[in-house]
Amino acid sequence: MARISASSHGESRLRVLRIVRRGDRHDPRDLTVSFRFEGEFSSAFLEGNAEGILPGETVKNMVHAAAREHGAKEIETLGLALCARALERQARISRVRVEIAESRWQRLEAGGKAQAQTFVSGSAERRTAVVTSNGKQVSVVAGIEDLSIMRSAGFAPSDRLADEDGAHDGLQRLLVGDLSARWTYTSGDVTFGPYRQGVRAAILETLAWHPSRTVQNALYTVADVILTTYEEIADVTLALHERPYRPADLLSSGINGPDDLFIAIDEPVGVVEVTVDRS
Amino acid sequence: MARISASSHGESRLRVLRIVRRGDRHDPRDLTVSFRFEGEFSSAFLEGNAEGILPGETVKNMVHAAAREHGAKEIETLGLALCARALERQARISRVRVEIAESRWQRLEAGGKAQAQTFVSGSAERRTAVVTSNGKQVSVVAGIEDLSIMRSAGFAPSDRLADEDGAHDGLQRLLVGDLSARWTYTSGDVTFGPYRQGVRAAILETLAWHPSRTVQNALYTVADVILTTYEEIADVTLALHERPYRPADLLSSGINGPDDLFIAIDEPVGVVEVTVDRS
Amino acid sequence: MARISASSHGESRLRVLRIVRRGDRHDPRDLTVSFRFEGEFSSAFLEGNAEGILPGETVKNMVHAAAREHGAKEIETLGLALCARALERQARISRVRVEIAESRWQRLEAGGKAQAQTFVSGSAERRTAVVTSNGKQVSVVAGIEDLSIMRSAGFAPSDRLADEDGAHDGLQRLLVGDLSARWTYTSGDVTFGPYRQGVRAAILETLAWHPSRTVQNALYTVADVILTTYEEIADVTLALHERPYRPADLLSSGINGPDDLFIAIDEPVGVVEVTVDRS
Amino acid sequence: MARISASSHGESRLRVLRIVRRGDRHDPRDLTVSFRFEGEFSSAFLEGNAEGILPGETVKNMVHAAAREHGAKEIETLGLALCARALERQARISRVRVEIAESRWQRLEAGGKAQAQTFVSGSAERRTAVVTSNGKQVSVVAGIEDLSIMRSAGFAPSDRLADEDGAHDGLQRLLVGDLSARWTYTSGDVTFGPYRQGVRAAILETLAWHPSRTVQNALYTVADVILTTYEEIADVTLALHERPYRPADLLSSGINGPDDLFIAIDEPVGVVEVTVDRS
Repeated sequence: MARISASSHGESRLRVLRIVRRGDRHDPRDLTVSFRFEGEFSSAFLEGNAEGILPGETVKNMVHAAAREHGAKEIETLGLALCARALERQARISRVRVEIAESRWQRLEAGGKAQAQTFVSGSAERRTAVVTSNGKQVSVVAGIEDLSIMRSAGFAPSDRLADEDGAHDGLQRLLVGDLSARWTYTSGDVTFGPYRQGVRAAILETLAWHPSRTVQNALYTVADVILTTYEEIADVTLALHERPYRPADLLSSGINGPDDLFIAIDEPVGVVEVTVDRS
Repeated sequence: MARISASSHGESRLRVLRIVRRGDRHDPRDLTVSFRFEGEFSSAFLEGNAEGILPGETVKNMVHAAAREHGAKEIETLGLALCARALERQARISRVRVEIAESRWQRLEAGGKAQAQTFVSGSAERRTAVVTSNGKQVSVVAGIEDLSIMRSAGFAPSDRLADEDGAHDGLQRLLVGDLSARWTYTSGDVTFGPYRQGVRAAILETLAWHPSRTVQNALYTVADVILTTYEEIADVTLALHERPYRPADLLSSGINGPDDLFIAIDEPVGVVEVTVDRS
Repeated sequence: MARISASSHGESRLRVLRIVRRGDRHDPRDLTVSFRFEGEFSSAFLEGNAEGILPGETVKNMVHAAAREHGAKEIETLGLALCARALERQARISRVRVEIAESRWQRLEAGGKAQAQTFVSGSAERRTAVVTSNGKQVSVVAGIEDLSIMRSAGFAPSDRLADEDGAHDGLQRLLVGDLSARWTYTSGDVTFGPYRQGVRAAILETLAWHPSRTVQNALYTVADVILTTYEEIADVTLALHERPYRPADLLSSGINGPDDLFIAIDEPVGVVEVTVDRS
Repeated sequence: MARISASSHGESRLRVLRIVRRGDRHDPRDLTVSFRFEGEFSSAFLEGNAEGILPGETVKNMVHAAAREHGAKEIETLGLALCARALERQARISRVRVEIAESRWQRLEAGGKAQAQTFVSGSAERRTAVVTSNGKQVSVVAGIEDLSIMRSAGFAPSDRLADEDGAHDGLQRLLVGDLSARWTYTSGDVTFGPYRQGVRAAILETLAWHPSRTVQNALYTVADVILTTYEEIADVTLALHERPYRPADLLSSGINGPDDLFIAIDEPVGVVEVTVDRS
C-alpha cells in the first residue's frame, strides 16, 4: 500500500532589504529567506485537509517581524529566531529548516571618503545560513556561495586536464573557479560574525598561497586550516567548479609568446567536492 | 585530527546532440550529461597526487562513444552504459553517478505534413535519468523536470494562501506551477520508454481531473496512481513550485466582473514535496 | 551648453494572466507589457518637477483595465488600445510606445481529449507587438521572438564556418538557431491574427524546404515570400542566431561512422540580420 | 519588388582572458567581443553566394591576435584595432561595429597585502566600448553597464510612485537601481582610461550627493557635470532601471517603528533614459 515516506512544504524567495541605521550611517542587509516545514501533515495529503499549514501571509509576516528585531545581527542569529517562531506558531510542525542568503552592498567611496547612505552592489558572492530545528536540537550551518576566484600562476596543472596519453593539454596554467563552502557549528551559541570572517580569510589565503598540485589538495588544505583553527566548527564542506579555459593557439596566427591569452570554453565544468570532519 | 568523511569529483555540462537516422527520417536527442566519481582518491586530497582521476578528455570521449552506440535508446539505458564504462576504465572508482537530462525538439508540421528533418524546440520540460552504480548494485531513477502546468478552474483554494484570520485571499482560483517528479525502478532491466510515458500521462491526467482540495492531496493522488499501476516502480517523489498570482483588483478601476484577470507576483514561491513508497 | 536631445521614461515588466472564458472552455493569455513615454518633460530633468509623469499605479491600472476589455483579442489590438489610453490620460505625453510579449500555453490532451481548463507551457517562442503612436500616426510592428529551429540535413554548409584556407570544418551539416522576426503593417486596421499565422507558417515552411546555400539566402527567401503574399505588410526584418555545434571527432575514439553526433560549443554565436521592404 | 534595405552579419560572444604580466604582478582582462559587418553582401542574400563573409575561425584569430598585441591597453583602443583589421582583411566590408565588454576582477588582499596573482570576481558592473568604422570615419562610444546603486536616504520620493489621487505610497524613501551610461568621444585619439575613471566618479559622486527631487533631475545633473568637465565628450546617455521595493507594513504585525524594512517586489520596473549633448 502507498505510504508517505517523506514530505515537506514551505515558502521560498522571501526577499527583504533591512536598512540598519546608526545615526546617519546606514548599513543595508539584502536578504532572501526560505522555509521548509515537516510535521503532522498527513491529512493534507490523504484527505485534502489543510489544517496547520501556515498561510503564506503568516510566513511573510514572521520574516518581516524577525528582520526588524534581529536584522542588525548575523544571519545565523536571524535563522535561529525564525525557527523558534515557526515552531511556536504551529504545533503540528515538528521540524523547521530556514535558509537565508545575503547579498553584499559596498559602501561607496566618493570624493575620497566613505558615504554614509550610498552603496554599490558587490560581487555575486553570498553569505548563507541554514538553521534546522526540531525544538530540542538545533543545527547551524554557515556558508559562502559563488565566491569566484582566479589564480594566474603557481598552481600546478591538474591531471584532470591531461589527455588520455598522459600528455598535458596545459589548460591549467590558470585556475578560474566558483567556490562554495559550508561549515557546521558545534552549538548555536557562537559569535558567528568573527568566525565567518576568519573562515573566509582562511579560504582565500590558502588558495592564494598554497602551492597545491591538485584542486583536491588545495580544498583539503583549506578544510584542515579551518578545523585546526576553530574548535567550534565540527565539519567543513568545500566544492569548486572550475570554469574551463584553453590557451589560445597563437602559433597558428604566427605569433610566438608566453601563454598569457586564454579562450573561455564552456564544457566540461569540472567539480571537486570534499567534506572534512574530525576523527 | 582532520578526516575526509566524503568526497567526489566529476565533470558536468557535457552537451551532445545525437541525430538518429532511420532513412530520411531523423530524430534529435539533445542531451546534457554529468558524472560524479567516488573511490580511492585520498592521495589526491592529502598529497596532491592525481593518479586515477579520469582526465576531462577521457570523460568526454566516453560520452561521445556511448552516445553513438546507445544514442537511439532511452536515457536510462545510456546512463547504465556510462556507469559501466567508467567503472571498467578506472579501478580506483568505487561508485559512479551519471545524470542525463534530455531537452525535447518537436517535429515541424509544415504544409500539413510532418517534416523528416526539421524541428522546433519544445517546452522547458526535460526528461532526466540518474543512474548510480558501484559495480554490483545499480540504481535507476527516472524523472521529469520543469513541467509547467496551469489549471484555471476546479482547484480549491489552498489554505496556504488564506490570510491569518482564516479569510481566503483567493489567490488560488488559479494554479500555476512547475512540477518535478522522479521515480525509482526496482531493477535496471525495464522497458523504460513506455513506463516514462505512462508516468507522465498519470501525472497530467490526475492534475487535470482530480478535484483536489490541496496541492498536497493532488500530489499524493498522483503518486498513488503511479505506484498502483506500475509494480516495477518502488517509490515516487513529486515536488510542485507554485508561481504566485493575485487577482487584479478591478473594483478599484470601477469595473465589475468575474475573476478572470490575474497579476503575476514573485513572492513567495510555495513548494510542496512528497515521497511515497510501498509499506 | 547642455541640451536634452532625447529622453523617455516608462514602466516595464507588467505581467498579467488573462483567462478568457467561453463557457467551460478557457484560454489563457500570458502577457508582459512595457511602456515608454516621450513628451514635454524637460522640467522633470531641469528642475526636478515630476508633473505629468504617470504614476506606476496608474500605468498598472491602465494595463489591467485594457486586459479585461481587450484581453480576448490580438496583442496588436491591445497595444493600440493602450497607446490611446495613455495619450488621453496625460496631455504632456506626445509619443507612446507599447511593447507586449505573449508566452504560449498549450491545451492539455489527457485521456485522448483536449482539456477545457488545464494547460502545459509551450516553448520559449513569444509573440510580440510594438505599437507606437503620437495621437495622429500609429505604427504597428508584429513579431516572433526566440523561435528555435533545427534542420538536420539539406542545408549547405555555411562558408562562415570554413577555415581560413577555404577548407570547411563542416560545422553545418546541422543548423540550430534562434530566429526572431518582425514585420510592419501598413495600417492599424488589419485582422492581425490570420496574418500572424500566415507569416509564421511562411517562415517555418521556407526554412524546412528551401535548399538554401547560405543562412542569408534562407532569410531573404522567407522575407520575399512574406512580402509577396501579404500586401498589408510593408517590411520584414529577420535575424538568426546560430548556436554552434561541432561534429564529434569519432575517429579519435576508433569508431567510424556517419556524422550523426555533434558537440555543443558556445562560441562564437553567428548572427545574420536582414530587413527587406518594397522598392 | 522585394529590396534589401539593411543587412548585417557577425559573430558574438568571443570570450578571452588576457593575463597582462609585469614581472610577477599579473592583471587579468576578462573580455567578451562581438562583431557586426555591413557591406557588399547582396549576393549572399540573393544567390546564396557566401563570398567575402569572414569565416568564424578568421574572426576568432583576429580577436586573439589583437588581444595579445593590445590586451594591456584600454578596450576602446582594442576596438579601434579590431575595426582596422577587419576592414583590411575583407574589401567587401564597408562598415564594422565592434563591441567589447570587460568584467572586472579584484586583486585579492590576503594577510594584509595585495596578491600579485590571485583575484576574486568583482560586481556585475561591466566596462563597454563600441567602435564603429567605415575606414574613413570612426566613432568611439564608451560605457558602463549594470552599475547597481542604492541610496538609503536623501532622495525625494518620485511622483512616479504616488498613487492616482496624488498621495504618495512612499516607495522611494529608498532608491535601488541599475544604471547604464554611454558617452561619445569627439575623436579616437583620447587617453581613454583617465576619462573613463573621471566619468565613473562623476556619476557616483553626483548620485551620492545631489539632492535630486526626481530621477530625471539626478540623471540630467550627472550628464551636465560630465559635459562641463570633459570637452572631448560630445554626448552622454544615461538610463536608470529602478528595482521596486515597498516598505513593510509593520503596523499589521503590531510593531511600530521607522521605515527601515523594505520588501522586494518585481513589478513594475521603472525606467528613465536621457541623452544630453551640447547645443
